[in-house]
Amino acid sequence: MTEFQVKNPNYEVLARKSFAGQAMMTELGVEIVTVAPGAVTLSMPYDARFTQQHGFLHGGVVASCMDTVCGFAAFTLMPPDAGVLTVEYKTNFLSAARGERFKFTGEVVKPGSTITVAEAKAHAVSDRGEKLIATLTATLMTVMDRDEVKG
Amino acid sequence: MTEFQVKNPNYEVLARKSFAGQAMMTELGVEIVTVAPGAVTLSMPYDARFTQQHGFLHGGVVASCMDTVCGFAAFTLMPPDAGVLTVEYKTNFLSAARGERFKFTGEVVKPGSTITVAEAKAHAVSDRGEKLIATLTATLMTVMDRDEVKG
Amino acid sequence: MTEFQVKNPNYEVLARKSFAGQAMMTELGVEIVTVAPGAVTLSMPYDARFTQQHGFLHGGVVASCMDTVCGFAAFTLMPPDAGVLTVEYKTNFLSAARGERFKFTGEVVKPGSTITVAEAKAHAVSDRGEKLIATLTATLMTVMDRDEVKG
Amino acid sequence: MTEFQVKNPNYEVLARKSFAGQAMMTELGVEIVTVAPGAVTLSMPYDARFTQQHGFLHGGVVASCMDTVCGFAAFTLMPPDAGVLTVEYKTNFLSAARGERFKFTGEVVKPGSTITVAEAKAHAVSDRGEKLIATLTATLMTVMDRDEVKG
Repeated sequence: MTEFQVKNPNYEVLARKSFAGQAMMTELGVEIVTVAPGAVTLSMPYDARFTQQHGFLHGGVVASCMDTVCGFAAFTLMPPDAGVLTVEYKTNFLSAARGERFKFTGEVVKPGSTITVAEAKAHAVSDRGEKLIATLTATLMTVMDRDEVKG
Repeated sequence: MTEFQVKNPNYEVLARKSFAGQAMMTELGVEIVTVAPGAVTLSMPYDARFTQQHGFLHGGVVASCMDTVCGFAAFTLMPPDAGVLTVEYKTNFLSAARGERFKFTGEVVKPGSTITVAEAKAHAVSDRGEKLIATLTATLMTVMDRDEVKG
Repeated sequence: MTEFQVKNPNYEVLARKSFAGQAMMTELGVEIVTVAPGAVTLSMPYDARFTQQHGFLHGGVVASCMDTVCGFAAFTLMPPDAGVLTVEYKTNFLSAARGERFKFTGEVVKPGSTITVAEAKAHAVSDRGEKLIATLTATLMTVMDRDEVKG
Repeated sequence: MTEFQVKNPNYEVLARKSFAGQAMMTELGVEIVTVAPGAVTLSMPYDARFTQQHGFLHGGVVASCMDTVCGFAAFTLMPPDAGVLTVEYKTNFLSAARGERFKFTGEVVKPGSTITVAEAKAHAVSDRGEKLIATLTATLMTVMDRDEVKG
């Protein structure tokens, strides 16, 4: 992986604070595992409340966590006072989300002053090991004007 | 919209039954509004548990509901005993999900024996009216072998 | 379709001039059919030089023309001196590109000062009529600094 | 990278034959550099005929080559008599395609009997070195019935 330049030495504290402010992440039981410049890992346990018709974790939850991990990976490379918006993402579901725990890794592919591109992978974790279940590519935007974010 | 050929006259009963079996849809408070051949509408109320850091509905929930509405729109055109899998989707977030209620409409663009393509729109509903907040294009696969779905 | 606000009354002249400057469009034989605020139509004849292994028009050409028509649809709503960059796109191929002529229509879904989202459809035209063969969603960026475009 | 199982020992000969049958690849001057199970590399020189308004290689050509390299990477893992169809792809343009030569690498992320997912990267090559300019994720379908391919 490329080494990225950090514009905000306080990135980890701010990333953890922003994460804590997302009610949905709390509701899903998602936790931050690691935060590094341009690379973040999240984890969540299986939760029967968030399943599809076959009892596996819902694809929407898998995608939400991959989107979030991309957003935070992008955020770590942004300047102080910046906010991050997801412009769009595309996700491929490779296997059913069968597992006791799920791991989401996000990495910045190309940082930019306005647009950052990041990629995520989702793995199902069980006693049979880790299995790649989904991938996601996200386009994120740096937002300096707080009011626009609140719009 | 094109008029589609129905292969399973019982499509609405099966669609509603399958929907009822998705724990996550129940947890989110999502309800079926209309089910027609190749076109489905869902609705959910604002829920503070599923918000992002600015207090608006989380993009992941918006995308989950658009994915689901595409899956059911595709399902209405499939033969009896078929199941539907999301192969992939791509979503664009156009505006913050600020509203009291959210409406999700899904329409089949091209049905197929193996691959079906569908598109969804998400609208935020408030006393100011309806606002388009996101779009999604999904690729769905018809699965006849139940075991594969459970895999 | 929504009615869009035009920021540059000279949009059509500039769009046609920019189009004429794209060597690839000339090489493919693509022509502008209509240019309106937020909506553009292009057309190209079948050309055996740009085919895939079954003798139909190559999907890459179909996608290139849909990307281009989205870019020009976005361009019509941008301010004077603006340039347009494609950030990303996603395309679904629905049917083989079998036809004597191909029509590409692009419409803006959501204009914005930085990011514009547009959608395109490709139709194959033959004596059997018009057939939808592909769809594309593009994210475009307004670029005011010419040097960045040249980067 | 994962090691993939080859179902057709003759994959390279067939891949090269299929490639030679694509008029567009010949027209663009694209050449096969390497063919391995689940991984293919293509290369093309800069060609002023296929440029956009700033004189750089057109994004549509970059995407076409990434789509093609994904298709061939998928093809290497398919059974004898199989054909490959691109269902959809999504591409992010990271930098202008400025270079003397362009390299396209494709790798299978997940092979499947019906659906295969592959990813591609495009690099611009010049005396300043190699630069990542675009990424693409493609969903490919195995087609055993030749007539459907010709449809």
